[in-house]
Amino acid sequence: MAGGSGTRFWPASRRLRPKQLLPIAGDEALLVQTVRRLEGAVALEHTLIVTGADQAEAVHSLLPQLPRENVLAEPAPRNTAPCIALAAAEVARRAAQSVQIVLPADHVIHPPAAFRSAVGAAVAEARASGALVTLGIRPTFAATGYGYVELGRALPARDGHAVHAVARFVEKPDLERARAFLAGGQHLWNGGIFVWRTDAIQAALREHLGDVARALAGPPRGAALETAYAGLQSISIDYGVLERARDVRTVPIDFTWSDVGSWAALPGVLPADAAGNVHAGGVELVAEDASGNVVYGEPGTLTALVGVEGLVVVRAGECVLVCPRERAEEVKRIVERLARGGRSEHL
Amino acid sequence: MAGGSGTRFWPASRRLRPKQLLPIAGDEALLVQTVRRLEGAVALEHTLIVTGADQAEAVHSLLPQLPRENVLAEPAPRNTAPCIALAAAEVARRAAQSVQIVLPADHVIHPPAAFRSAVGAAVAEARASGALVTLGIRPTFAATGYGYVELGRALPARDGHAVHAVARFVEKPDLERARAFLAGGQHLWNGGIFVWRTDAIQAALREHLGDVARALAGPPRGAALETAYAGLQSISIDYGVLERARDVRTVPIDFTWSDVGSWAALPGVLPADAAGNVHAGGVELVAEDASGNVVYGEPGTLTALVGVEGLVVVRAGECVLVCPRERAEEVKRIVERLARGGRSEHL
Repeated sequence: MAGGSGTRFWPASRRLRPKQLLPIAGDEALLVQTVRRLEGAVALEHTLIVTGADQAEAVHSLLPQLPRENVLAEPAPRNTAPCIALAAAEVARRAAQSVQIVLPADHVIHPPAAFRSAVGAAVAEARASGALVTLGIRPTFAATGYGYVELGRALPARDGHAVHAVARFVEKPDLERARAFLAGGQHLWNGGIFVWRTDAIQAALREHLGDVARALAGPPRGAALETAYAGLQSISIDYGVLERARDVRTVPIDFTWSDVGSWAALPGVLPADAAGNVHAGGVELVAEDASGNVVYGEPGTLTALVGVEGLVVVRAGECVLVCPRERAEEVKRIVERLARGGRSEHL
Repeated sequence: MAGGSGTRFWPASRRLRPKQLLPIAGDEALLVQTVRRLEGAVALEHTLIVTGADQAEAVHSLLPQLPRENVLAEPAPRNTAPCIALAAAEVARRAAQSVQIVLPADHVIHPPAAFRSAVGAAVAEARASGALVTLGIRPTFAATGYGYVELGRALPARDGHAVHAVARFVEKPDLERARAFLAGGQHLWNGGIFVWRTDAIQAALREHLGDVARALAGPPRGAALETAYAGLQSISIDYGVLERARDVRTVPIDFTWSDVGSWAALPGVLPADAAGNVHAGGVELVAEDASGNVVYGEPGTLTALVGVEGLVVVRAGECVLVCPRERAEEVKRIVERLARGGRSEHL
């Protein structure tokens, strides 16, 4: 799933170059890292990428070895349920007896081997049971920005990985509940990584989101796909299917996971220098008495910091952004202001 | 005088593009502003620019209307005395009966009309008396970074401007002396702006720096100039001539003057927005809850600040610099580090 366009990584992220296409957490785009993370486990010809129509070319150039027909271009953004239904229909057309691994393209996960092991267990579980399986991320803080799954009864382990029934899905909690979840140990973050048999997700879609399943059966192509999307509701797979499905299971994981929600998240996913500065995108960082800064820039550029602490310093294209780490979310104020001013050349 | 290469405006200033060639205090290079400041008073064909041989082309392109033969290229930097002696020899060759106005090309002075009026008075004084005249800048703080002139007896005013004999030159004082100078009112900054008859400066050079005057009489050109410069001492006009000359006078000025010693000096010479941010170089500044920042960038670029105070944010070519205003002088640490690392492509 490589659709969506965010503003929280402006000026690196732009309308035609959203977060997942950027080397935010290293020297490769998050999308490329996501594909690479399954190298050896999932062949490139079995990898489908669903993205926005206006980003398809960028996806092709980031992954030139990927068959062109493996990039599915959505005519319009409709959240994750239509995206997953479209991919499921295409996978069903190619290989009805298959298990799918559904991954957001803009997450950071370390280490890859642990991830492949957990995904392998989830695949075995989904294949054997026909259940919808989600990877449940062990919370590391009382997050209010994520949905949670509540652990149900323990099921037999798979390949050394615990498996639980999901008792229920919980939408983003307030801080008090989030703290209780963290303390209680019975709630995991729902990170949007799913594993299921193609027949299982298609059956669940038909049952809970019949209009979406019908509109995208086939799947339609070209003008028919555009017509279908024009009439679709925008709805997440969590809300539309998983919260209503009878048999949802989770494989808990406790390695590094981040959805890299803003520039401020980079220190959690990148190695820091001795003074706690991190940098990404290919920029060269020269720091003198500077600590805890987050620096992004393109290859061939150099950013020099003297005597500053805890800043985000981003240079991308013609734009530079400087803000304190703790105010990194406020970059949207700049984006909104540029949009109001009709300055789309910078967006 | 447009020679010299500084490191304090890195990354905007580079070896081949020093401060005076940069639009640091507005949209035009300081050199161009310096020439424009005398528009109407000094014709372009009477304007000579002495610069380093490797900067002559950049000078030509900044001032395309200036006759090419009016750019005198020094083969090597030798401080101000040889620079002034070279220019004086060239002026003598062209117009022996002339008065010269000698200006550093990297200062900011406002307003131009007041400046032209003071210079006009200095020209009248120099022409009539044969004295060496310096503009004396009324101190606005206890500066330890400038030389001072001590006021001697008052002489008859010229065109409404006071004129004083210079009792003595004082080299950069310590803070205590600088405070006493500021309180006493008898000391002015020696800003390096001089007015004198061509015959007067040539006579003073012959008397006090005979070797320099002899080496540059003519003046020599091409290989002869290179040979002459190779043997010249590096010495300032203040130390080599003015401190020893018998008749030096000063016209005090009290309008805005700055030698723009570092990025931190820009707020003193540029109009600020409502939050006290200043920007130069052609960059567009978008500030949200940001105050007291100094921003530099090239035309077509945009710098966005959110929630930061008192920073210097410079983008020039492939480099970005961020540091607190009060540590702007420390940019030399970055330059030194790049030089040690052999990274001349960034210098």
